[in-house]
Amino acid sequence: MQKAIAYARERRVTYLDQFRDWLRIPSISALPEHGADCVRAAQWLAGHLREIGLPRVEVIPSQRNHPLVYAEHARDANAPTVLFYGHYDVQPVDPLELWTTPPFEPAQRGDRLYARGASDDKGQVFAAVKAIEAMIATHELPVNVKLLVEGQEESGGEEIHAYVPRHRKKLAADCALVLDSGFFAAGVPAITVGLRGILYTEIEIQGPKSDLHSGVYGGAVPNPFHEMVRVLALLHDKSNRVRLPGFYRAVREPSEEELRMWRALPGSDADLRAEVGAEGLTLEDGRTSLECRWSRPTLEIHGVGGGFSGAGGKTVLPAKALAKVSMRLVPDQKPEAIFKSLDRFVRRQVRPAYRVDVRKLSTGRPWVVSSEEPAVRAAAQAWTVAYGAEAKFIRVGGSVPIVDVFKNTLRLPVIVTGFGMPDDNLHAPNEKVELPAMWDGVDAVIRFFHEFARTRR
Amino acid sequence: MQKAIAYARERRVTYLDQFRDWLRIPSISALPEHGADCVRAAQWLAGHLREIGLPRVEVIPSQRNHPLVYAEHARDANAPTVLFYGHYDVQPVDPLELWTTPPFEPAQRGDRLYARGASDDKGQVFAAVKAIEAMIATHELPVNVKLLVEGQEESGGEEIHAYVPRHRKKLAADCALVLDSGFFAAGVPAITVGLRGILYTEIEIQGPKSDLHSGVYGGAVPNPFHEMVRVLALLHDKSNRVRLPGFYRAVREPSEEELRMWRALPGSDADLRAEVGAEGLTLEDGRTSLECRWSRPTLEIHGVGGGFSGAGGKTVLPAKALAKVSMRLVPDQKPEAIFKSLDRFVRRQVRPAYRVDVRKLSTGRPWVVSSEEPAVRAAAQAWTVAYGAEAKFIRVGGSVPIVDVFKNTLRLPVIVTGFGMPDDNLHAPNEKVELPAMWDGVDAVIRFFHEFARTRR
Repeated sequence: MQKAIAYARERRVTYLDQFRDWLRIPSISALPEHGADCVRAAQWLAGHLREIGLPRVEVIPSQRNHPLVYAEHARDANAPTVLFYGHYDVQPVDPLELWTTPPFEPAQRGDRLYARGASDDKGQVFAAVKAIEAMIATHELPVNVKLLVEGQEESGGEEIHAYVPRHRKKLAADCALVLDSGFFAAGVPAITVGLRGILYTEIEIQGPKSDLHSGVYGGAVPNPFHEMVRVLALLHDKSNRVRLPGFYRAVREPSEEELRMWRALPGSDADLRAEVGAEGLTLEDGRTSLECRWSRPTLEIHGVGGGFSGAGGKTVLPAKALAKVSMRLVPDQKPEAIFKSLDRFVRRQVRPAYRVDVRKLSTGRPWVVSSEEPAVRAAAQAWTVAYGAEAKFIRVGGSVPIVDVFKNTLRLPVIVTGFGMPDDNLHAPNEKVELPAMWDGVDAVIRFFHEFARTRR
Repeated sequence: MQKAIAYARERRVTYLDQFRDWLRIPSISALPEHGADCVRAAQWLAGHLREIGLPRVEVIPSQRNHPLVYAEHARDANAPTVLFYGHYDVQPVDPLELWTTPPFEPAQRGDRLYARGASDDKGQVFAAVKAIEAMIATHELPVNVKLLVEGQEESGGEEIHAYVPRHRKKLAADCALVLDSGFFAAGVPAITVGLRGILYTEIEIQGPKSDLHSGVYGGAVPNPFHEMVRVLALLHDKSNRVRLPGFYRAVREPSEEELRMWRALPGSDADLRAEVGAEGLTLEDGRTSLECRWSRPTLEIHGVGGGFSGAGGKTVLPAKALAKVSMRLVPDQKPEAIFKSLDRFVRRQVRPAYRVDVRKLSTGRPWVVSSEEPAVRAAAQAWTVAYGAEAKFIRVGGSVPIVDVFKNTLRLPVIVTGFGMPDDNLHAPNEKVELPAMWDGVDAVIRFFHEFARTRR
């Protein structure tokens, strides 16, 4: 292990040049005009994996120019197998004018490298690749390794969701390492042991068949916005709890141990309030903000389309109102059951003067893993040593649907971690990676492979 | 009078050619790129008024390329004076693809002439101009006449609202004839004796200082849409009444006589429901749709901006929600008092985790005139004879703020009428005017001038 770590440390200058080359490819998966760039980024990665000695590398053709990259290196049939996951696609870069340096011209300022994808997720994939390179070169690879790197994480992920269930055998492993998360705070490395699920819906209410003059018709013709706000307002009670029947029935509370760990983490509710710049927080009674964000389900209204909301005044009685509403789900809520409850509740509430439709746009199940799981413990150990600070077990309020697929389709314990920092500006201008964290990340991955191999002996 | 009527009738072919020329000018006041066209339309009208013998014609320069056209013809100091009002500007034409023939290439199909502005309001102004031409040519003009035609009716009307109070003496008259309304239904000519006022506002609620990830922050950070729908939902009760304190305090009920007239008008609530294609109506308990649209105040939500409402799903916890809300007001509600009530109510309701702002965008007072008013009776008589059917006294639920200015600034009885038909497609594709109604409108204006002169003798 030490040889591999030393090997990688000696080559950081070269590695940085390679990393910059990859970052220059604008692999924005949400924008069809960058389809060819996504393919180039996939090919760059595949070529690089071949160069560092992986015997089997595939670029799996994609309908939408977002190919998966698959590679493997078999050590021996008795060694355990790690399935590594990351993504090479990146978020769009708007608003471009807020970037200090162009998003696809990587620029180092101090210890930071600024570029779109530097942290999310090319930097994390690159660190894993360099760790594997060093272990192969020094004959210190203690496990069989499979890599599955997608190019559509930022725009739906249909390709990988279709691919994994059809390739269970090929992807068979003993654990999955998902490097697309990060630190709890600067100086606090972390292993993510829970993610919320999601149920994204839209609710459409219609009054008249077309937009009407609000002077001529107002007061007699049903305005769908009136019904929409009435129904949406019924979805929360005064304590910020969701009022859908059965919504909390399957909610599993975190353990006392977990709550204790969360309370010991740095930062307070007041810090959160200051960070987001709000006048207050909307917590459930008696719960901290971390509890509310990590272990409680939510219902969020994202916006309501229809009618007029531009500058000035337009006197329209709108034909339709269309609300975007999503729910974050926690174990053991089931998206299908929650959707049924929403659908029934909304339909029952909407009065006969209106037409209503409730549509499910996407779902992802919540996920948790025990911090006692050997693979998770191995990761915590590796991260603690590599970063010189105790890795904490945290959850994340967002949703990473592929984690549930690895768990439930491939039946794997999943490790979700990484070295992203809360201020890395993911999905925002001036995304950056902390280079020391990235180099320590190479060490951390090498250490994890060895720790994990040890647990399996 | 008969000579003037005959004079105009003989010249319809010529008049139609002239009218088409005016309709070809795309005087869309809402679109700055049509500023030069608005000026051209004003100059066309001014030139035409000079040609038909009005001795004093002015195009009053405008900051925003929407000049007023003023003209007068003095008969003698003892004759009464009629101030005529209309507008030469027109609505935008989108969606263009729904027009059968181009909006600025007038096309006759049967008795109908299709063009933007054919009915609203060039056709009505043109009919009045032709009536005046015929009375001048036949020496049968029984009144002094002043014309004030604006070019900004469809986009705010600031010019005329600034002009009238500064030119009270110049505009002094005995009544104002506003030709920008129409029939109650095909075959039912009408005099409009009431208009609702308007108070247009926007309500802005802010949670965090910028949009956030709804997974990472949802459940702890205030979502302004949640507060917005809660507050907006409080603005109506179950009987579709507005819940603002004092909202109905100053509301004057229509007279029994007026209600009886409304009940005798053709059409039913079921007809309205079918016309607008809704599943039902939202009437106040015990009131008909005409009562609700003509004599009851309303509060309408036009739309709510902010967050995300596009295609697909975006997991944003929005920083802001901005609702467009207007109220239609009836006598004797005062826009300022109602705004105060709204402002106070909303500020009191919004909880401390949110910032709120309530802004007044525009106001217009409600207006009614007695059907016993001599000028109104004269118009009813003229319309009844010209159209061969009894003119009804109706109200309109919309707002025409200039009418209140004529009433309260110039202290004039105002006649609001015209020959627009409910199916003229105002503000919509395929606007048309019924040519027989326009020609009868020329007769009607001639008859009105004579009837009105008679009432003043």
